[in-house]
Amino acid sequence: MKPAEPVKSTGRPHFIVIGGGFAGLWATRALARELVDITLIDRANHHLFQPLLYQVATAGLSAPDIAAPLRHILRDQANVRVLMAEVSGIDCPRRQITLSDGSILPYDQLLVASGATHAYFGKDPWAPHAPGLKTLDDALLIRRRLLLAFEHAEAAATPAEQKAWLHFAVVGGGPTGVELAGTLAEIARHTLRQEFRRIDPRQAQVRLIEAGPAVLASFPPRLQARTRAQLEGLGVQVLCGQPVADITAEGYRLGDTFEPCRTVLWAAGVAASPLGAMLGAQLDRAGRVKVQADLTLPGHPEVFVAGDLASLQQANGQPVPGVAPAAKQMGRFVAAAVRARLRGKLVAKKTFVYADYGNLATIGRMAAVVDLRGFHFSGLLAWWFWLAAHVFFLIGFRNRVTVLINWAWAYWTYQRGARIVLGGPTPGKEEP
Amino acid sequence: MKPAEPVKSTGRPHFIVIGGGFAGLWATRALARELVDITLIDRANHHLFQPLLYQVATAGLSAPDIAAPLRHILRDQANVRVLMAEVSGIDCPRRQITLSDGSILPYDQLLVASGATHAYFGKDPWAPHAPGLKTLDDALLIRRRLLLAFEHAEAAATPAEQKAWLHFAVVGGGPTGVELAGTLAEIARHTLRQEFRRIDPRQAQVRLIEAGPAVLASFPPRLQARTRAQLEGLGVQVLCGQPVADITAEGYRLGDTFEPCRTVLWAAGVAASPLGAMLGAQLDRAGRVKVQADLTLPGHPEVFVAGDLASLQQANGQPVPGVAPAAKQMGRFVAAAVRARLRGKLVAKKTFVYADYGNLATIGRMAAVVDLRGFHFSGLLAWWFWLAAHVFFLIGFRNRVTVLINWAWAYWTYQRGARIVLGGPTPGKEEP
Repeated sequence: MKPAEPVKSTGRPHFIVIGGGFAGLWATRALARELVDITLIDRANHHLFQPLLYQVATAGLSAPDIAAPLRHILRDQANVRVLMAEVSGIDCPRRQITLSDGSILPYDQLLVASGATHAYFGKDPWAPHAPGLKTLDDALLIRRRLLLAFEHAEAAATPAEQKAWLHFAVVGGGPTGVELAGTLAEIARHTLRQEFRRIDPRQAQVRLIEAGPAVLASFPPRLQARTRAQLEGLGVQVLCGQPVADITAEGYRLGDTFEPCRTVLWAAGVAASPLGAMLGAQLDRAGRVKVQADLTLPGHPEVFVAGDLASLQQANGQPVPGVAPAAKQMGRFVAAAVRARLRGKLVAKKTFVYADYGNLATIGRMAAVVDLRGFHFSGLLAWWFWLAAHVFFLIGFRNRVTVLINWAWAYWTYQRGARIVLGGPTPGKEEP
Repeated sequence: MKPAEPVKSTGRPHFIVIGGGFAGLWATRALARELVDITLIDRANHHLFQPLLYQVATAGLSAPDIAAPLRHILRDQANVRVLMAEVSGIDCPRRQITLSDGSILPYDQLLVASGATHAYFGKDPWAPHAPGLKTLDDALLIRRRLLLAFEHAEAAATPAEQKAWLHFAVVGGGPTGVELAGTLAEIARHTLRQEFRRIDPRQAQVRLIEAGPAVLASFPPRLQARTRAQLEGLGVQVLCGQPVADITAEGYRLGDTFEPCRTVLWAAGVAASPLGAMLGAQLDRAGRVKVQADLTLPGHPEVFVAGDLASLQQANGQPVPGVAPAAKQMGRFVAAAVRARLRGKLVAKKTFVYADYGNLATIGRMAAVVDLRGFHFSGLLAWWFWLAAHVFFLIGFRNRVTVLINWAWAYWTYQRGARIVLGGPTPGKEEP
């Protein structure tokens, strides 16, 4: 691809938004009526509804069910140009960015909202053996591994091999780890029942391994205990306070014990997008950019950072969490600041304040925990609440309807509609 | 993966079915109540509803919408074992097959129904520049190419490049070619409208190129003419009697003219699965196995070939066509023969007779042609007929409902729900 043509000069200020996630998309949409030229740049052609990504990884939903093309979402917003491209450089002093095709785009104001990816805490050799979950491609890879593991188990030559293929370990007891482990247990216990002749999928061992003292560290202790109980009710073994010491193609090590296991999923570590390091600002331990209270870069009031890439302390000393509502609120805050400057006003609010409406996590079939400003509930009611909230916030009418139907279907039948192995047919060719 | 354990000897005869397409699956299901051990082997974990594959390629449906796991379809049929594996050898004299992992499976009776793939008539260098459509992976590759072509056009540096990215050529005027060209025109004219800022997708040029004198060669001339008229009404340029002379990364050649074109799709040639050649029997020009009237291999009454892999002349001198109804009928015929032998009877019918209930092809939005034993119709009515027939035959309740919703949505809004680019984010990294 040749360098992109520079934006035609309209005389209007140019606002570049890097990343079409919650922060970038919400900032862009909030500026629909302003006299500003917006360029929204993303590596993917779609906005991804990340809270449901685990459903794609576990074959409950199709990839297109939880994604909508950015161009389509923004088709009626005439002041936006969408560019599917990769940013390779950011030059704050010169106020320009470079794309991987070599083209250079100057900006007047910039929002960097390129999010986070999974990280292995310096244990990069673990990566091929323990895939993480951040993009649709990650989800489809995990789906493939999970489905093939049962195929391998069915064809295994020895009981030991069979057992290793039927052992599933999820490393990391945050919301993603809890969702993956709970759903995996459901698949093994219910979905695949009666489908195999030599193995009984119900004998699969699903483990959730957390280095810290409890799962769902950000939840109150009572809900942590409820989560653990609900997971165990679904058939998950929950191991807390047990850091994983090694991961190989053959299994993982806990302390001195090596556990043969062919499917390890990584839900333990998050690192900020590498674009953060190009801004020349201070980073926190996870690589997030330490922003000022108004989400700008120190010394660069025209550069904003928002979403999972931003590191900011709340007044209570806690960091703003890396969740979708926080990213949306940051996006809207940045839009308000850009709008105020466009209109020659001072920035209305100098300090971003995260409005925390609550915290929810799903665990598995009819199991979830909800923490709404101190009002706690769990179990079936929490699951319905979680379902309603997620379907409500899903972008695009069609997706909501098909997602609801798929869920209704899955609920009544325990079946999962997307159990399709893509990308190379032969289990024998599969790694490892 | 280690060699599969031999099937436990139950004393029952062992019937191996290679291929979980229409022929193999229908044969398997028809033997549900027989005292026979069936092993169904497929490289994929799913049965694919191939008649709707073009909808996945053109982003109208998700991959899981048109596929169902073989294990799930057959979960209640206790005499079947499903094996996700690749067959690497067939030894008719010894009555055994070899899998790619080295394991050997003996059979008493065998059905080879591994279908067909696309072929380039010896022009294999064309393959990377003109992908064909036979599997879900093919469909997702084509979807990716189509969606990225518009992205490349939007970012193109010169008008010539932009034009080449907006030129779409479909080679081959059979049903698949007609479907692809019609749907592509719909996407360019309606779906992507207003989504781009520098290009107008309606200026895309969609060509259907057929070497023979008319599109849909197997249809009556009146319907061929109607098809052409409906395609042209959708905005497709139909070129008949024009064989493609060359295809490169930059475009294709017709006679002496080289046409710059970045997206060529191949719908021209079909070749039988290479397993046919392992049977030691006579093959036709397309590599199909010349079977006897009872679908067995000459000299091997225990080996059947069915579906697209079988070459058989009907009483009227025409070959049995490579369509889904013929494959299902062959599958059921083979099951009847196996059943009769199991019961010690002579084969009930010595000759497979194809019951031709008609021929339908869809063209695009509200356009199709139907030929029901001489009763012809086309246009909107034909399109509804085609839709009803295809949704009716689609396997799996959930799929039918979600497919119908997706279509209703697409019908009213011209939107296509699966416009998601997967597999590597950067257009710059994409092969031309």
